[in-house]
Amino acid sequence: MIQKGKRNIEVCYSPALYQYYRNDDAIVVVSDILRATTAICAAFDSGVKNLIPVGGIDEAREWKKKGYPVAAERDGIVLDFADFGNSPFNFSPERVSGQTIVYSTTNGTQAIMMASEARHVAIGAFINLSALAGWILTAGCDVLVLCAGWKNRYNLEDSVFAGALSDMLIESGKYDTICDSAVAARELWHIARNDLTGYMDKAAHRHRLRKLGLDDVMEYCHTPDTTGVIPLLKGNMLVSHVDY
Amino acid sequence: MIQKGKRNIEVCYSPALYQYYRNDDAIVVVSDILRATTAICAAFDSGVKNLIPVGGIDEAREWKKKGYPVAAERDGIVLDFADFGNSPFNFSPERVSGQTIVYSTTNGTQAIMMASEARHVAIGAFINLSALAGWILTAGCDVLVLCAGWKNRYNLEDSVFAGALSDMLIESGKYDTICDSAVAARELWHIARNDLTGYMDKAAHRHRLRKLGLDDVMEYCHTPDTTGVIPLLKGNMLVSHVDY
Repeated sequence: MIQKGKRNIEVCYSPALYQYYRNDDAIVVVSDILRATTAICAAFDSGVKNLIPVGGIDEAREWKKKGYPVAAERDGIVLDFADFGNSPFNFSPERVSGQTIVYSTTNGTQAIMMASEARHVAIGAFINLSALAGWILTAGCDVLVLCAGWKNRYNLEDSVFAGALSDMLIESGKYDTICDSAVAARELWHIARNDLTGYMDKAAHRHRLRKLGLDDVMEYCHTPDTTGVIPLLKGNMLVSHVDY
Repeated sequence: MIQKGKRNIEVCYSPALYQYYRNDDAIVVVSDILRATTAICAAFDSGVKNLIPVGGIDEAREWKKKGYPVAAERDGIVLDFADFGNSPFNFSPERVSGQTIVYSTTNGTQAIMMASEARHVAIGAFINLSALAGWILTAGCDVLVLCAGWKNRYNLEDSVFAGALSDMLIESGKYDTICDSAVAARELWHIARNDLTGYMDKAAHRHRLRKLGLDDVMEYCHTPDTTGVIPLLKGNMLVSHVDY
């Protein structure tokens, strides 16, 4: 049983398990550390006005035809019609400040849109960890962390992030959990937190990224608290919490 | 990449994720520590000849009508037509030795049957951990541990078991993994192994069992290597490896 007077935090390791964890009264925090949710936070940190997450390539192309700047790549290659790729390093203030941009990502978008019936949908990454936790503590709702995973498989970086957020909320004294995934994720965070990038060397996804020559983002994606942005879903768009 | 010359071990945390991990060339080890796979090992340890795992209550009742002894309970209550409940303590040699019995369980049976196309399906529990690992090392196939979970949710006891088996196979030098769930499960095993029952106090399922007055099985289910049996699926029945 959750301790009386406390809010509940749970963790769902894959979009394919969402139906077994769904709680529409909760804040759903979507985590896709490598790289969608980190890149989205980076874009807001650079002053993007709105960000439209889309799944398929065709949908991204349609938005491009309507005149929106589009970030889209597959297997590390920027798509021919896109303005830039999906790396957080692409979202410089010169490129995105004040604009509405479209971000195409398979795992991340799927997770964001499937949670759209929840009370709030927030974008979580290590880079906005403390800011997000602070906002959650003022909102005072139950929390469900939805890990985007890798093609519906469990992944380590999203789970460790879920553990970090769980730890911060439980340590505040206002949250509790009896959810086994939250318990396990928190254990991993305790192991990883003193050398997060080094620990993530173990993650399978890192091996894939290195293979694609994309491991330059590892340190950036695993450095906590470099931004205070809290992107939230409003309709089909992500906006900053100050515009929410 | 898996190291050259080594076999691969992966871990699937929920039957709902099986399609994303499926490998029909592998030995699938089904783990439902509280209590189905532990009880099944206990039954073979007491000399059961064959064990038929069934899911629904109606199916269990049909087998009873055909004259088979049936173990079946729901929410801690032995069903009216059944001979005994699902606790491993029910499978004493006097009751089951030399017999074919039917075991009704929701999570466990679902997991066993969904893996039936795999090269081999083995029943794993802490109580047969080393015997099972030894058999796997002689079989020399890839391994996929399928955690039965709790109504398709992740659970701690099945994952820690998966970590224990992964650890044993990897430490043998003959197995390797880049599967994030195997990496995470192994971390949990390293944390839990010195006081497994105490650690499992954290597991949500334990809270449910205690509530139902069923926590007498906790220590038994979390004591490694009390039996040398290796139950394997043959058709729709589980048999001992000596009859396989």
